[in-house]
Formats: sequence, C-alpha cells, structure tokens
Amino acid sequence: MRTRAAVAVEAGKPLEIMEVELDGPRKGEVLVEIKATGLCHTDEFTRSGDDPEGIFPAILGHEGAGVVIEVGEGVTTLEVGDHVIPLYTPECRECEYCLNPKTNLCQKVRSTQGQGLLPDGTTRFKMLDGTPIHHYMGCSTFANHTVVPEIALAKIRKDAPFDKVCYIGCGVTTGIGAVINTAKVEIGSRAVVFGLGGIGLNVLQGLRLAGCDQIVGVDLNDDKIEMAEHFGMTDFVNPSKVEGDLVAHLVELTKGGADYTFDATGNVNVMRTALECAHKGWGESIIIGVAPAGAEISTRPFQLVTGRVWRGTAFGGAKGRTDVPKIVDWYMDGKIEIDPMITHKLTLDEINHGFDLMHEGKSIRAVVEF
Amino acid sequence: MRTRAAVAVEAGKPLEIMEVELDGPRKGEVLVEIKATGLCHTDEFTRSGDDPEGIFPAILGHEGAGVVIEVGEGVTTLEVGDHVIPLYTPECRECEYCLNPKTNLCQKVRSTQGQGLLPDGTTRFKMLDGTPIHHYMGCSTFANHTVVPEIALAKIRKDAPFDKVCYIGCGVTTGIGAVINTAKVEIGSRAVVFGLGGIGLNVLQGLRLAGCDQIVGVDLNDDKIEMAEHFGMTDFVNPSKVEGDLVAHLVELTKGGADYTFDATGNVNVMRTALECAHKGWGESIIIGVAPAGAEISTRPFQLVTGRVWRGTAFGGAKGRTDVPKIVDWYMDGKIEIDPMITHKLTLDEINHGFDLMHEGKSIRAVVEF
Repeated sequence: MRTRAAVAVEAGKPLEIMEVELDGPRKGEVLVEIKATGLCHTDEFTRSGDDPEGIFPAILGHEGAGVVIEVGEGVTTLEVGDHVIPLYTPECRECEYCLNPKTNLCQKVRSTQGQGLLPDGTTRFKMLDGTPIHHYMGCSTFANHTVVPEIALAKIRKDAPFDKVCYIGCGVTTGIGAVINTAKVEIGSRAVVFGLGGIGLNVLQGLRLAGCDQIVGVDLNDDKIEMAEHFGMTDFVNPSKVEGDLVAHLVELTKGGADYTFDATGNVNVMRTALECAHKGWGESIIIGVAPAGAEISTRPFQLVTGRVWRGTAFGGAKGRTDVPKIVDWYMDGKIEIDPMITHKLTLDEINHGFDLMHEGKSIRAVVEF
Repeated sequence: MRTRAAVAVEAGKPLEIMEVELDGPRKGEVLVEIKATGLCHTDEFTRSGDDPEGIFPAILGHEGAGVVIEVGEGVTTLEVGDHVIPLYTPECRECEYCLNPKTNLCQKVRSTQGQGLLPDGTTRFKMLDGTPIHHYMGCSTFANHTVVPEIALAKIRKDAPFDKVCYIGCGVTTGIGAVINTAKVEIGSRAVVFGLGGIGLNVLQGLRLAGCDQIVGVDLNDDKIEMAEHFGMTDFVNPSKVEGDLVAHLVELTKGGADYTFDATGNVNVMRTALECAHKGWGESIIIGVAPAGAEISTRPFQLVTGRVWRGTAFGGAKGRTDVPKIVDWYMDGKIEIDPMITHKLTLDEINHGFDLMHEGKSIRAVVEF
C-alpha cells in the first residue's frame, strides 16, 4: 500500500513529507493506522545528526497512537479495529528480561530494532523509487500507516482520544514510570526534579500521585513555574538566582536532602547535582535524560559510600503492554492530566515547524494529527 | 588511670608506644579494656597523612574487642565484665538515621567523632606532659584501655575469642554486610568481587552464605587464588592476563554480566569496571573501598539508563549493636570463618611492623593482642 510519511532523508536536514510504499504485515506483525503522534526530543536528537546511532533514510517518531488495520500470521492478542500505542520498548513476556521483575528492557527484537529493521531483518517501508527506508525505534509513527511487531503494541481502551494518549507512548510513561517503577517513591517523600519540560512535568505529576510531601522543581526558566505548579510542584528553584552552592541550597530546602531526585535535562553536570542533593544514607537519584554522545557523569565515591544510590530509567521502567493500558485508564479516570501539556497541534505537513517550536522552548508537546 | 597506647604523634611518622593518661568514663560512656585489635588500611590511610581529615596526635585503631571495666552515669545496657566490640558507626536507636531501615549511618555523635572527640566535645586521653590526644573513629583501639560511648559498643557473647572477633569490628562486617545488607544478594546470583584482600575475602564468604551460583574474584596477584577459593570463589580473573577488554571478558564469564559486583580496592578505575560488568537491566555495583582524597568515579549515564545501579556501603550497612552480635554468633556457629584471615599476631610494641606487613602484601589481617 501507499501511505504518507515524514521521511528523515539525511542527517541534519528537515523531514520530507512524501508518499511511501508500505508492505503488509508479515508473521507476528501488525499494520497500524497512526492517528496521532507526539514530537519528542529523541526524534530531534536523531534528525539533527547528533545521535551516533542514527540511520538514514528513516521514518522517525515513537510516540503514537492508532488503530489496527491488519494482522499478520500468528498474531493472537490483537485484532482489526483494536486501538493501540506502539512501544519502542516491547514486552514479549518470554525473554530473560521480561521474566525478571527488576527490568523492562525486553531484548526480543533489540538487535534488529537498533538497525532500523523489523525482527526478520527487513524493512517494510520504501520510497517510490524503491529505496528502502529504515524503521525507527521499532515504531516509525511519523507515517500515517506503519508496521509494528505484535509484542510492541499496547492495546488500549477505545474511548481514549488519540491526540492525547499518544503522549503515553513516551513522555508520560517515562516521567510517571520513573517515579513509580524505578524509584518506587513512598508516600511522604521529598523529591527534586531537574528540568521542567515534557518529561519533568510528568515526573511532577507522578510524585503528586505517589503522595510526596515536598516536590521541588529546578529550571533555569521562570516561565515554567505556572505549569509546574499545576502539575504538583511545591517549591521552585532557579539555579541562576541561587547565591552560593546549589547542592547546599537544595539540601537545606529539603531539610537534609531529598529522598528522591530526578534528572530530566540530559546534562551530565545536572546529573551530578541531582545525585549530590539526595539525602545522605538513603537518597536515590534517577537519570532520565539522554546525555550527548560521549558525555560522562562523575562524582566522588564518598557520595555513594555515604548511602546515596545512582540509578537510571528507560521508558520509566514500564513493561509496556502491561503498564501503558493502566496509564491510559489513569488519564481517562482523571488521576493524571495530559491535555495542558499538548500545547500545539500540527498536520503532517507542518511537522518541521514542530521541531522549531521545540528549539524555541515554546511547546511542551506538539502533536501531529493525521 | 594510666594505660599503654600506640600514639600517632604526627602524620607520616611511625606510631609511638607510650604510657598515656586516660580519664574515666563520663555520662553515657564506658571504659573498655581492649584485649585485641586488628590493623586496617584505614588506620594506615590516616597514619600515613593521606587522610585529609586526619587529626594528630591521636590514638588510632577501630577494629577491637575487649571487656567493660567501668560504666559512666546513666549507662543502662552494659555492665562491668561484658564483652564488647567498639563501633565506629554507632547505633543510638533514636536518631532519624537509626529509625530508617534504609541506612546504618547513625548521626548521634557524628560531629564530635569527626573531630576526634567524645560526644561532650572533650578527649579522655592525654600524654603524660598533659598534651591532649585525640580519639579516632570513636574507638581508639590501639590502646590497652579506651573510653567509648555506650551507643558505640556491641555486646557480644563471652565465649568468643577476642583475637578473632575483633576483626568483626570492621573487615568482616564490612564485607559480609555489603552482600547481605547493602546488595541484598539473592540465592542463585552471579557476583564479581574486585580485590581479594581483607575485605574482598569477606565479601566472598558473604556471597557463599547468600547462596550465589557463581563468585568471580578479580585480583592482580595470583597468590590470592588459594585463600579466595577457600572463602568461596568459583572463578578467578587476573586482569593483567586478560587479552582485550576486561569488562567484555567478565560479561562473557558471567553469561551476560553479574547480578552484583563489589569494589574492594578503592581504585576509581576499578569501580568503573565493576559497574560496567554488572548485568544490563538489573546489575548492581557496590563500592566498598575508600578512594584517595579527591578521586572521582565516572561512567556514561547510558550504563545507568540501561538498568545498572551504583551504590556504596559503609560498615557493610550494619546497624552495629544489632548486627555485630549476630555475626559473632555466625562465627561461633561455623557459618563464617575468620581464623585463616588472621595471618599475623603482634604485641603492641610490634605494631609498626604490622603496617610493614600490610604494605608488603604479606598479611591479610595482623592483630595486636594486649
């Protein structure tokens, strides 16, 4: 079939909107009509050429929602008409990782996904001239139709609006999951969140959901305060306005250090600050942000020997087929909010403008609707 | 009273054996006759002058065992004749830290202890000319008699031999506790231990006690193999004999990475290797060793984002008054071994020779008996 897609033809170039050829689903695969997709910094990281593992040409996008159009041979858990969210971290429920409650990093299709291919080692997309186009993070939601492995699709309720719950495919789950699955924050905790963008806001509402007593937000931009307070922030710190040592300031503000801290900036210096303002004896710091290629985190080992713990999280530690439908329910039940974070709606033709908005800091989430 | 002690008069100088004056125990304090004390690298770190927080003159030593001779006002949990192990990490059972099950870092006497003083801000030791002598780590076990806060004494059974269980005051508890309290290693785990000295051997026997399936020891010295195997090591790796990347070698040996890794070297490069050979998704690395002043650990945040956890441990995460008597029982019941690690017995007059043995790598533990 033919479908329309935004194609990353070359690193650093704007996406090109074009008709592409899409082969139907093979064994264990599902054809999905994408109804909406968010634009995430990770897409831009790859588009820009900064991602050393970027492969071109490719159809980017990994934060989508849509409807099952056709199922391939052997697909048993999904049928035509099901509403789904594609998962860049799949859940096969069979591999060593899926069977271990400590991790969500299903390895079933890891190697082919990393090569921009489906599990059988081929791509379903090609240009009209026959040039193969790579898949991206196993999702490629910047296309009106895409083919995804069955194990990489979370089935969700049919009354959930695509243009909101697509954000659960990455940002919402990453932020809330970091709190719930990775940090396992307890009621009454004090927490600090660095970076109040699309991920940080979801960390905030995760912390509120977890019953924190104090939720400190840290950002260089005072314009973030209003939205952050809406999502649960109790205290705001702008590092550029702190005299003296930021760690000492945050330790004092949290009465000895935070029980949990979260980096949602991707800046390795911020990651260090986040660790060091965690409470001696038991404070845990969780890295969510993706650092530039080659960047390293550092600290004195004394920080760990005196009881701090340094962790990271990918997709919020969520096992996607199991957890994503629950988060959709939370949204539909009003336990979490998404609508205020979807600041811009675009058509596929306007997708490059979405990256401009991201760079200008004007959007929290821009969503493309098909 | 007068007692004999090895005094660190000046940084970098040999200890001087001399008669010193010792005041009796004040409120909440206990006078202990030290029967035996181990020599630990941490004593040498301070004696040598490398410890930026070292204070002189001081009576070092923190790995002792002895008998209560006199109790001060208000002491209720100990009486004359009790056998005790001094604790450099006390357990007041009242402070925020003691009441938190996640940490053992009791803060009750922390600030004075760090200044080489007892909790009332004074020292009990002085030279015969009246010069005050500082306490060390709240213990000062390189003296035949010492005064220690009640909350810094673990009461142990009377049939336990002082010259063996003194080692539980630091090395044994640190190594075994890192496994049991900090890592909480599960039966069937795979583990890697870096550094097969006095701490590393105790990590090995902790891992054996925890029912590990594979216990890899890593050391540059092949002479460590025999003793390490005695304490539970199943595989040995000498990094100087590994061709290619050590991390890759260890990941292959442990079939994907170790569930738990332990640094018992204090070398920050080794700490990085220990983290990176932990299993993707769930591997935890525990820093036990004390790094040189100013040294920093580093890694790519990707190592944490893909599920590895970086922790540290002090005194093996043990709450001393509660846990140390249990470890003494384990020794007396034959669940753990100490005797083969006590490689040298010295008199107080020979104590400086003990540091020579340490530097020459000839001793695991040298113990001074009074």
